[in-house]
Amino acid sequence: MIEVFDDEHFMRQALFEARQAYDRDEIPVGAVIVTKNTIIARGHNLTELLNDVTAHAEMQAITAAANYLGGKYLTGCTLYVTLEPCQMCAGALYWSQISRIVYAAEDSKRGYRAMGAQLHPRTTVSSGPLAFEASQLLLDFFRKKRN
Amino acid sequence: MIEVFDDEHFMRQALFEARQAYDRDEIPVGAVIVTKNTIIARGHNLTELLNDVTAHAEMQAITAAANYLGGKYLTGCTLYVTLEPCQMCAGALYWSQISRIVYAAEDSKRGYRAMGAQLHPRTTVSSGPLAFEASQLLLDFFRKKRN
Repeated sequence: MIEVFDDEHFMRQALFEARQAYDRDEIPVGAVIVTKNTIIARGHNLTELLNDVTAHAEMQAITAAANYLGGKYLTGCTLYVTLEPCQMCAGALYWSQISRIVYAAEDSKRGYRAMGAQLHPRTTVSSGPLAFEASQLLLDFFRKKRN
Repeated sequence: MIEVFDDEHFMRQALFEARQAYDRDEIPVGAVIVTKNTIIARGHNLTELLNDVTAHAEMQAITAAANYLGGKYLTGCTLYVTLEPCQMCAGALYWSQISRIVYAAEDSKRGYRAMGAQLHPRTTVSSGPLAFEASQLLLDFFRKKRN
């Protein structure tokens, strides 16, 4: 029997990655990339640990997925990420020609939509699953930082 | 005596990097990052070799410069790149808060300006030095690929 998982299942895995970031004192964003109902790549934000603005969860997952597939194009794949991608990550996703993006929380300030960046015309986007949990984790993080 | 180099000098170094990419059968784009009149990072496009859409010249140079400086912000630095950055690279440069960007050739289709991506408000931009040489190298590459 093949079990087919839904968006919430995979977003929960992305949220697990975001919590790994939180535990390392990084802005808690996590991502997984899925193809044929299987997670082929995982990543969480490591910009502080690596001293590298490019070390967003999505960027690491894109590189890992391409490595797994042995090719740089992610057609047939879905990215689940706990926060709307920024323009850097949207740009990387554009080049990857990924088929689908699902994000949890919106980023009304630095998200790719507010910044004006573009996804590939063949990429479809959904948002919403576990948005509350993903936002709460980010709020907890910034609250902890302020105190 | 301290010798002060001009933009053309550093762009020539970026063009040297672009030729390294050309010799490896990669789209020939090269970049260097400079601070205090010294090159602290170099990179050339390696997307085919690494099977990774994120392996643009600028991305590698940003990571290398941050590594050299021991911090992720590139204030006080200038990026010289032979082709106008794409939205992914513009996004990474945004996060890095780099002080200045100099590019040679324009990219009227996939450049950050055509795609609508934004640089950091404190980043200044110049274009033009060695634009002809940088464009010719790209044209040569695509001509060679077609034949």
